[in-house]
Amino acid sequence: MQTIVAKPKKQQKSQHKMPAKISKVLRNMFDSLCLALEEIDGSKFEEKSWKHGENGNWELGESDNGTIYIDRALRNGKVFEKVGVNYVSMLGELPPGMTFQGSEPVMIKPEPGMEMKGTPYFATSTSFVINPCNPMAPTAHVNYRYFQLGDGTEPGSWWFGGGGDLTPIYLFEEDAVHFHQVHKQACDQYDVNFYPRFKEWCDKYFYLPHRRECRGVGGIFFDHLQDRTQEKLFSFIKTSSEAFAEAYLPIVEKRKDIEYTEENKFWQKLRRGRYAEFILLNDRGTSFGLKTGIVQTKSVLNCLPAEAFWMYEDQPALGTEEAKLLEILENPREWL
Amino acid sequence: MQTIVAKPKKQQKSQHKMPAKISKVLRNMFDSLCLALEEIDGSKFEEKSWKHGENGNWELGESDNGTIYIDRALRNGKVFEKVGVNYVSMLGELPPGMTFQGSEPVMIKPEPGMEMKGTPYFATSTSFVINPCNPMAPTAHVNYRYFQLGDGTEPGSWWFGGGGDLTPIYLFEEDAVHFHQVHKQACDQYDVNFYPRFKEWCDKYFYLPHRRECRGVGGIFFDHLQDRTQEKLFSFIKTSSEAFAEAYLPIVEKRKDIEYTEENKFWQKLRRGRYAEFILLNDRGTSFGLKTGIVQTKSVLNCLPAEAFWMYEDQPALGTEEAKLLEILENPREWL
Repeated sequence: MQTIVAKPKKQQKSQHKMPAKISKVLRNMFDSLCLALEEIDGSKFEEKSWKHGENGNWELGESDNGTIYIDRALRNGKVFEKVGVNYVSMLGELPPGMTFQGSEPVMIKPEPGMEMKGTPYFATSTSFVINPCNPMAPTAHVNYRYFQLGDGTEPGSWWFGGGGDLTPIYLFEEDAVHFHQVHKQACDQYDVNFYPRFKEWCDKYFYLPHRRECRGVGGIFFDHLQDRTQEKLFSFIKTSSEAFAEAYLPIVEKRKDIEYTEENKFWQKLRRGRYAEFILLNDRGTSFGLKTGIVQTKSVLNCLPAEAFWMYEDQPALGTEEAKLLEILENPREWL
Repeated sequence: MQTIVAKPKKQQKSQHKMPAKISKVLRNMFDSLCLALEEIDGSKFEEKSWKHGENGNWELGESDNGTIYIDRALRNGKVFEKVGVNYVSMLGELPPGMTFQGSEPVMIKPEPGMEMKGTPYFATSTSFVINPCNPMAPTAHVNYRYFQLGDGTEPGSWWFGGGGDLTPIYLFEEDAVHFHQVHKQACDQYDVNFYPRFKEWCDKYFYLPHRRECRGVGGIFFDHLQDRTQEKLFSFIKTSSEAFAEAYLPIVEKRKDIEYTEENKFWQKLRRGRYAEFILLNDRGTSFGLKTGIVQTKSVLNCLPAEAFWMYEDQPALGTEEAKLLEILENPREWL
């Protein structure tokens, strides 16, 4: 027989409110960052909202059960080549047999006679991959998310994840320093150990083992974060997600009009190939999205660059700006 | 105490000769197919040979211990946009702790006190991915390989794998029929069950679950083949690898000069994006190559297209040639 232990009322109330609170924060961040990107570019995002249709497939439209699922893309702008963006806030049910080991979804095989039920979940996430046209302006990625199994009252049944990271095509060291500095300031308001811990986590996570290089110059990253109170982590996520605009947009403003050559543009395409490799081969977020099927494949892969290029011999000549970037990617640096 | 059972002399002799025999067949196929492609195109392949340097890294040059490891690429030809090609024949040692479950490499965790040794292997493989310029000419892939652990005398310690498959950008049904017909003829000389078995295996293997579509119109595929005598499988591999040229080259000749539009070319780039997705997300051969580290990453990824493109909304309008292709990819057909 199962014993149900009553939780203190206050804690229960706070946990029940978290989905609504964090959804709102991530939605505000989503809308205001889209607006800021549109202002810099002069172009508008195209938007698609999705809802569950009667046959279980996704169809265009807004849901009336509280689910919000929006994809946006800005393409061929004056400043941005492609910005792929998603926002979701939804209650749902995992496929029967799917469970979690840490934050990794795994499928369990049913024992004979075992009843397989889908576990209810709540998920909210906002995600941007921003690819400027100018190779002197770096690509950036930001994602913050909250995931909850059931009503989130069981120990370990909720977690936060996210971060922001910078991927230069050509390296301006002062840009890397600025990006890290702003993120450190956001972290330090909550815990002076956050920045060093999440900076290292970022270098390790955005790593292509088969290329022996980091994707970019990092930033912060964390997953399955649940080692503080929900309230404290919520406040931290609010602050750090809002800090991304200050960390990244001034860099774009500074680099978007620098002159560049055909060769610079070709190097950008090759680096976009590496970005696609990371997403498809190594990114656990992509794998999570494709495995759980919470959103459509095209939403998960909205983070891919528009154009990518591969070439057998793609190592730059010694002493070039391209070689200088690779050296940093192979040996991640402490920027602060 | 371990009991060593003497093997019949004839069998042992045949197994010891297999590495040399299959290497030679795959090398001949490699060279003659490269030559045929050069004749069609008018351009030459660039070639790099690799050998193990003293520090354990790969360096340019030919090995004097019998290892042959050649990468070739033909780029920006008149007919071919990119042909990425590899040939290897090598004795080596797997990383300590790496073993196989079927043909899948797995890492085993050492128990305390357990000595981890690298298992010696012999591997030979020839592999082509051929991307024509003209979107009316299909992409094709062919790979044949032999893998042996130790001296290949233990049961299950050797296997053959391979096949050839066709990936149209625009579908000409007669091309798919021809490609399958030639492969069926090669199979039927050995076993009438081979073609239906390997055709189905091919449709299942070259499948993108996240897109719910096959990569192309298939052909034949098999892995971990060891359920006939080594001699019989060797003869079959010789015949079917040699059949690829007859299956594919006439299709290129027929389609390479058809007129096409900018829109056709753009659809080709989008389909190349799907090809890159398959290679990086789903292809166990790529995963095998990257995990075992038998050859360099750039050799494994020589099968990627040069250029790929992704777009959020990439579904063609109903009734178009593009939509007709997708319908076939979603519902693999019996071509014969």
